[in-house]
Amino acid sequence: MAAKKISSFHPPQRVLMGPGPSNINPRVLAAMSLPVIGYMDPAFVDMMAELKTLLRYAFQTDNQLTYPISGPGSVGMESCFVNMVAPGDKVVVCRNGVFGGRMIENVERCKGTPIIVEGTWGEPVDPNAVEDALKKNPDARIVAFVHAETSTGCVSDAKTLAEVAHKHDCLTIVDAVTSLAGCPLKVKEWDLDAVYSASQKCLSCTPGLSPVTYSDRVIDYVTGRKDKVQSWFMDLNLILNYWGHTVRTYHHTAPINGLFALHEALLLLKEEGIENTWARHQRHYQALKAGFEAMGLKFLVKEEKDRLPQISTIMVPEGIDEAEVRSKLLSEFNVEIGAGLGPLAGKVWRFGLMGYTANSANVMLCLSALGSILSKMGYPVKVGEAEAAAHQSYANQHTSMAQKARSRS
Amino acid sequence: MAAKKISSFHPPQRVLMGPGPSNINPRVLAAMSLPVIGYMDPAFVDMMAELKTLLRYAFQTDNQLTYPISGPGSVGMESCFVNMVAPGDKVVVCRNGVFGGRMIENVERCKGTPIIVEGTWGEPVDPNAVEDALKKNPDARIVAFVHAETSTGCVSDAKTLAEVAHKHDCLTIVDAVTSLAGCPLKVKEWDLDAVYSASQKCLSCTPGLSPVTYSDRVIDYVTGRKDKVQSWFMDLNLILNYWGHTVRTYHHTAPINGLFALHEALLLLKEEGIENTWARHQRHYQALKAGFEAMGLKFLVKEEKDRLPQISTIMVPEGIDEAEVRSKLLSEFNVEIGAGLGPLAGKVWRFGLMGYTANSANVMLCLSALGSILSKMGYPVKVGEAEAAAHQSYANQHTSMAQKARSRS
Repeated sequence: MAAKKISSFHPPQRVLMGPGPSNINPRVLAAMSLPVIGYMDPAFVDMMAELKTLLRYAFQTDNQLTYPISGPGSVGMESCFVNMVAPGDKVVVCRNGVFGGRMIENVERCKGTPIIVEGTWGEPVDPNAVEDALKKNPDARIVAFVHAETSTGCVSDAKTLAEVAHKHDCLTIVDAVTSLAGCPLKVKEWDLDAVYSASQKCLSCTPGLSPVTYSDRVIDYVTGRKDKVQSWFMDLNLILNYWGHTVRTYHHTAPINGLFALHEALLLLKEEGIENTWARHQRHYQALKAGFEAMGLKFLVKEEKDRLPQISTIMVPEGIDEAEVRSKLLSEFNVEIGAGLGPLAGKVWRFGLMGYTANSANVMLCLSALGSILSKMGYPVKVGEAEAAAHQSYANQHTSMAQKARSRS
Repeated sequence: MAAKKISSFHPPQRVLMGPGPSNINPRVLAAMSLPVIGYMDPAFVDMMAELKTLLRYAFQTDNQLTYPISGPGSVGMESCFVNMVAPGDKVVVCRNGVFGGRMIENVERCKGTPIIVEGTWGEPVDPNAVEDALKKNPDARIVAFVHAETSTGCVSDAKTLAEVAHKHDCLTIVDAVTSLAGCPLKVKEWDLDAVYSASQKCLSCTPGLSPVTYSDRVIDYVTGRKDKVQSWFMDLNLILNYWGHTVRTYHHTAPINGLFALHEALLLLKEEGIENTWARHQRHYQALKAGFEAMGLKFLVKEEKDRLPQISTIMVPEGIDEAEVRSKLLSEFNVEIGAGLGPLAGKVWRFGLMGYTANSANVMLCLSALGSILSKMGYPVKVGEAEAAAHQSYANQHTSMAQKARSRS
């Protein structure tokens, strides 16, 4: 039999309500498809400077070395570890989800010694447990933790964790893959050292880029290392010559069209204003939550204050085939949601409302589609109730904002 | 003073005749800007299978593990080394340009021992020198070389080098960054083991992807390694679960829009037919060469058979400010060419005719612009002569093709 003839790919149009990628604003898609230019073109070099300025705004920092790594978020993570962890270094790693586990893998592959602070999946990292670990390991050099655990939807108190780390003379490595632009992340105010993120979550840009920011403490450490960083591609000493200075030296060919897209995505963030973006995520999360609660669905993360507005992890009700629900959402409604990872596989769904995806139309579509599918599967839900609850939430929020505005005037 | 207001970036329109990126076909740019979908979407998974099929065609191989790495060519290079070189391993590395040097860096960072076969920049790797190195180092495990040296424009005899390596029971790591789709590269026929390339050269796709292909020998070695590969991101044992099988496990978020683009770029290659693509590169190189020779310019690579049609390295004539020429080509004609790297900095220009850029309009523009600039700088060139020579070359090639066709009929 002849092989199937391959023709141009026409992707289906999806509403991306999983843990990322999120939907991309047409302005960003258009920027990405502009004709490519060279990575040493003066026009490109000017754009790189703007990109760094815009990224500093997104990270709320004035760190000089703030730039997008040419690779997905996992390269951002690995870049922090290979540069900052030398063989034999002790690193306190907090694990309360998949990505803390990946940090441990990274420490081990750098021949460092991970001191693991085990937490509960769905609960924030406990600063007291970190303090205990640091007291027992006064020679630890680094504390690594995930600010926003994409696998659970739980946020940890990055400010307090950084304070504990610095009290014990440790640098911090912070995973902000899902937090950047989705909820408050204040690199300068919280005094975080190495922070990495990803382009396809709340920035709603194309996947494949990992924005990072490094404090001067990190740069001093890396430029002072006597041994060679084990990765050529990720070695900050080499990358500094491309992204760090005004005179640029060739290191690798940057993903130029992706950077056009990131520039536009960050510009959209600047235009909206980052506080407004955080508030938008919170507003639509409240409506989605009201809908889920009206359906009797439960969150994995118990405490409201620990929940990420940009990703809601919902317990699959007893007797419901979780994969079938995801599959029907995709095939019948073109809505993608996320499955559980690791020990949560089969037990939860993850609903993302990230960046451009975070709007009321998507909240309504999601609740309506989920209600319809669940009710056909015998789950006791009255179609329309969840939507009504979400509408009520929007109305209440509107009233509350109006009252606030009145009390100020 | 207030900071300059940042607005949407509007890149200038360039003719990219440097060492890559090359210009991108509008069909590829359009594919890249299609709305993103999830990396586990059934539609995306089907496209991944097609991508692998198309890449096998481009590499001329039937290696099962043939896929695009989510990073630029230097990640492709590093992926080969970290997976295949364990601490203490001896690796014969051939250096006749910048990228051979980068291979040595990679061996060292994997704690391997590089056995360096030094060559002359602008000459191919000498198989006899490799044979000698292998005789002196019977415990060497790998031979690494660059098929098409982007820094010099020189091609090496990959087939013979692989024969020598296999005779001594060594695996091969082959840099095909600039050769893929620009000149014959026959992975199966030449029995190459690990071959990496890049998306933005003769494939004329967006930068940021690194197509690779691995023989079963490589997979057997990597899956049999007892120690852990030092990079989490590049560990083939983990990536096999995403790209290698039909049931996919999450590893990292692939650069989805970039993969849409690569699919379309590879489809264009398939439509043209790879032999036709090789012939097109050769045809336009012949015309460009005729023009250069009419201007009295000399190639770094002396022997015609050693030259890459997709990149011509030209000696800067005595008394000419090479940077000024490049700068004027860019500012006055929107033509980008490449500078010399390493010991060739300031001594050569690199003219690329890669992929979509390889057409007669660009050949004529380049010769015309270069002639105009050089003549104003006092270089003895009669404007129009180079263009005439190029036209003559096209005419001669046309006649010769017609004669061949007649002699066959």
